[in-house]
Amino acid sequence: MAKEITARDVDYSQWYNDLVLKGGLADYSSVRGCMVIKPYGYGLWENMRDALDKAFKETGHVNAYFPLFIPKSFLSKEAAHVEGFAKECAVVTHYRLMNDPNGGGVIVDPSAKLEEELIVRPTSETIIWNSYKNWIQSYRDLPLLINQWANVVRWEMRTRLFLRTAEFLWQEGHTAHATAEEAIIETEKMLHVYAKFAEEFMAMPVIKGKKSANERFAGALDTYCIEAMMQDGQALQAGTSHFLGQNFAKAFDVQFLTKEGKQEYVWATSWGVSTRLIGALIMAHSDDDGLVMPPKLAPLQVVIVPIFKGAEQLNMIFDKLKPLMDALKAKGISVKFDDDDQKRPGFKFAEYEMIGVPVRLAIGARDLENGTVEVARRDTKEKSSQQLEGIENYIEQLLVDIQQSMYNKALAFRDANIRKADTWEQFLKMIEEPGFIYAHWDGTGETEEKIKELTKATIRCIPLDNPQEDGVCIFSGKPSKERVIFARAY
Amino acid sequence: MAKEITARDVDYSQWYNDLVLKGGLADYSSVRGCMVIKPYGYGLWENMRDALDKAFKETGHVNAYFPLFIPKSFLSKEAAHVEGFAKECAVVTHYRLMNDPNGGGVIVDPSAKLEEELIVRPTSETIIWNSYKNWIQSYRDLPLLINQWANVVRWEMRTRLFLRTAEFLWQEGHTAHATAEEAIIETEKMLHVYAKFAEEFMAMPVIKGKKSANERFAGALDTYCIEAMMQDGQALQAGTSHFLGQNFAKAFDVQFLTKEGKQEYVWATSWGVSTRLIGALIMAHSDDDGLVMPPKLAPLQVVIVPIFKGAEQLNMIFDKLKPLMDALKAKGISVKFDDDDQKRPGFKFAEYEMIGVPVRLAIGARDLENGTVEVARRDTKEKSSQQLEGIENYIEQLLVDIQQSMYNKALAFRDANIRKADTWEQFLKMIEEPGFIYAHWDGTGETEEKIKELTKATIRCIPLDNPQEDGVCIFSGKPSKERVIFARAY
Repeated sequence: MAKEITARDVDYSQWYNDLVLKGGLADYSSVRGCMVIKPYGYGLWENMRDALDKAFKETGHVNAYFPLFIPKSFLSKEAAHVEGFAKECAVVTHYRLMNDPNGGGVIVDPSAKLEEELIVRPTSETIIWNSYKNWIQSYRDLPLLINQWANVVRWEMRTRLFLRTAEFLWQEGHTAHATAEEAIIETEKMLHVYAKFAEEFMAMPVIKGKKSANERFAGALDTYCIEAMMQDGQALQAGTSHFLGQNFAKAFDVQFLTKEGKQEYVWATSWGVSTRLIGALIMAHSDDDGLVMPPKLAPLQVVIVPIFKGAEQLNMIFDKLKPLMDALKAKGISVKFDDDDQKRPGFKFAEYEMIGVPVRLAIGARDLENGTVEVARRDTKEKSSQQLEGIENYIEQLLVDIQQSMYNKALAFRDANIRKADTWEQFLKMIEEPGFIYAHWDGTGETEEKIKELTKATIRCIPLDNPQEDGVCIFSGKPSKERVIFARAY
Repeated sequence: MAKEITARDVDYSQWYNDLVLKGGLADYSSVRGCMVIKPYGYGLWENMRDALDKAFKETGHVNAYFPLFIPKSFLSKEAAHVEGFAKECAVVTHYRLMNDPNGGGVIVDPSAKLEEELIVRPTSETIIWNSYKNWIQSYRDLPLLINQWANVVRWEMRTRLFLRTAEFLWQEGHTAHATAEEAIIETEKMLHVYAKFAEEFMAMPVIKGKKSANERFAGALDTYCIEAMMQDGQALQAGTSHFLGQNFAKAFDVQFLTKEGKQEYVWATSWGVSTRLIGALIMAHSDDDGLVMPPKLAPLQVVIVPIFKGAEQLNMIFDKLKPLMDALKAKGISVKFDDDDQKRPGFKFAEYEMIGVPVRLAIGARDLENGTVEVARRDTKEKSSQQLEGIENYIEQLLVDIQQSMYNKALAFRDANIRKADTWEQFLKMIEEPGFIYAHWDGTGETEEKIKELTKATIRCIPLDNPQEDGVCIFSGKPSKERVIFARAY
C-alpha cells in the first residue's frame, strides 16, 4: 500500500508535513531547525533556481558570492537593520577544537577565541555594501546589478519544513544606483519578475503590493511583496523587493562621483525569494493523495508504468515505447519508464500520485495490440485511452493544459475567497473563515498592531494599482482612501 | 593604460595575486581568510559547475542539500576523521545577540548559549551519514548516489585567493554501496570524471593516482587524486575521490539487509572539487599580460572592438556585425560588442587580454570597406585579417583550436618537466628546479616524512597503471617496485 497521508480537513498542518516527508522533498536533521533537502525536493529547487536565474540574467543581473560570515560590528552600522536582524542568529566565537584532556572527544579550545565574533549571515546587505564601497567610485560604475545564490541562517524558535527553517537556501539581489528613481524602478521590476515566475512557473496567482511601514524589511524605505493564498485561506509572502534608499550607502560610506562632479551617496535595492517557495507550491496545489506539481517545475513530468507478466512482455512494451521516450526527451520533456518488477502497478500509481508527476501513462498487453495507451493527468485525475501514434504531441499539449488549468483553479479559489469587510463586526466574522479580507484602514501602525493583537490578522499588502475609494477604517472609524488586504499568514 | 601585472619571473606569487584581483575574479573581504568571488570569477565557476553537474547526472547522481552545521559530537564518531578535520574550524556557540546595555552596539547574549556547540561544516561525511542511517534499510535502497553543491569552512592560518581560503565553494559526492567492490568502482569512476573535466574543459593535463597513506583523507581507506603541474613547476591537487570503506557506516551504525537476508554495514565513497580549480586554471595557462581562459569555460568567448570616430561610424559597424553576433549566439558562443566611447581601442585590447577573452575581433572603417575583420587569439597573440563573410564558422573552429592548443602547450610543458631521479643527490638537485620527480620510494610513511622535512617535497601520488620496475628507494636504499611522483605543492 502507498504511504498514508492525513486529509486536509482532518489536520491541515499534518497533511502538509506528510506531503513534505512522504513525498520525499525534505527530512528533519539532527540540527535543531535545519532540514535536509532530499533529491526530489532539490530537483524542484533546481528547476525554480534555473528559471529565476534566467530571468535575472535577462534583466541584466550577474551572480557573485560574498562571505558566509559577517563581523558583528557590521550589523550595528545600520540602525534599523540591527533591530530587525541582529538578534536571533548563529554566532561564531571560536575557531578551533581540541582533544578533551579528560578523554571526552573534542572540546572548544578556549585559547582560540575570536577577537570579534562572526555572525552567520541572516541576509547580506552589510557585508555586500562593505565591498561595494571599494567597487563604486564614479557614476560609470553604476548601476551595479548583482545577485547571490546562498544559504542563510536565522535562529527561528518555531520552525516548519521549508516554510520557516533555521538555515534556508535563497537568492538575494543587491543593486546600486545613481538615483532614487532608478532604484525604485529596479525594485518594482524585480517584483514583477517574481510575480511572473510565481504565475507562469508555479501556477500560483499572487497579489503585488507594498508592505505597511510596520511590516517593512529592517533598513528599507519601502518593501514590495507578492502574496499568495494557500488552500486553507491563509496568506503566504512569496517574495519581497526592497527600496533601501541611501541607508546602507550611508552606513558603509559608499559615495560616487556624479556626472556633474559631485559626491553623492548611492541608492540601493535588495530582493529575495527562498526555498519557502516550495512550501507555497505544496500548499497552493496539492491534494489528499499527495503532491501536485506544475509541469514547468516538476522534477519528473511523465512516468510510464508498464503492466506486464514476465520479462518478455516487459521488453515488448519497452521496445514499443522507446521511440515515444526519445520523442519526449527531444522535446525537453522528462520521462521515466518504471520497469521495477517488485511492485504492483496499483502501488506504483499511488506512488507517482504521491510525488505529483503531472502525466502518467499505463500500458498493458491489450493496449499493445490496440496501439493505445492510458493517459492519466495528476491534477484532475482524469484518465483516457489515447492512440500511441503521435501521442508525444498530445502529451506536450497536455502538459501546457495542466499548467494553465492548475493556475486557473488556484485563481478561482483565491478570488472566491477574497471578501470585503466594511464594519468591524463583519471583519471579526470573516477573519474566522478562510480567505483574505479587503478593508479600509486608517494608515497607522497603532491600528494595525491592535488588529493583529485582537485577530492575528496582519496587513499583507497595499495592492499596487489599488482603486482609490473613500471609506472609513474598520477599526478606528477614521477616514481612509483605499482598502488593504488583511489575512492570517504563514 | 591597462593595469600593471607583475611578471612571472619577477614574483610568481604576486603575478598570481595580480591576475586574481586585476582580472576581476575575486577580492579580499573584511572577514579574515574569506574572499568575495566577483561576477567574472563567479561566471567562470558557473561554467565549471554546469559542466561537472552534467557529468555527475550522466553518471547517475542526483543533488541534495544537507545542513551547514554539524553537532560537535558527530565529529568525534569517526576516529581518524576527527583528527583530520575537527581542529581548525568555525564554532557556533551562541544563537542570539542583544543590545549592549552600555550602548556599544550589539553583544553576544550570554544566556543564549547552545547546549552543544555546532561546527560550520569543513566537509559533510558525518552529517550526511547521520541521515543515510534513516534512508538505508535494504539492498533495494542502494546504491545511493548523492552530490551536494555547498560552501564549507576550514580555518586555515595562511590563506591565498582561491587556493586556500577559510570559506570556499565546492561539491561533495557521498555515495553508499552494498559491496566494497562497487564502492571502489565508484571511487575510480569519479576520479575519471574529474580527470576528463580537467583535460577537456580546463585544458589542463592531470596525473591520476593514489595518495600515500600519509596523505589520505581523514577517514578514508584509499584516496585517489588528480595532480596538475603549474607554470612554476609546483604540483596542485585538483580533485580527490575517497574510498571510505565501512568507516562512516560503522560510526553512524548504517546497516542494510542484504539479498541473502543478513545485516551488513554499508560501503562508502566521497569525492570533491572546489573553487581551488580556479586557482589551478589561472596558474596553468595565464601569462604576463593577464588571464588566458580556455574557450569551453570562458565567461566571455568573443569580444568585438569597433574602431570608430563618432556615432555614425559606430552604428555602421554595429549594423554590419549584428548578423555575425546573432550567428555566434545561435551557435552557443558568447559575444560582446564593446561600444564604449570613453576608452581607446588600445586600452580595450589590453583589458580583454587581462581578462583572457579567447578571441578578439577588431573592425574599423577600412575593414568595413574591404569586408574584413582583424582576428586576434588570446593564447598565442596571433593576429590575422579574415573575410567577414562566413567568419562565424572560422571563429567556431578557432575556439576549438585554441582549446586544443592550450591543452597541448600545458601537456608539453608538464612532460618536459618530469624527471627521473635515481639517487638522493640527483633528487636534491632536481627538487630545487621546477617540476615533478619520478623516483623510487620504500613505501614507508617514515621515509616520506623525512623527505618532506628535508626538501619540502611530498609524494603527490602513485600513478594509476604505474609501470612496475625493480629499484631502490632514493632515500633509504631499500627495495622498491615502482616509482612515485614527488613535488613541492600548493
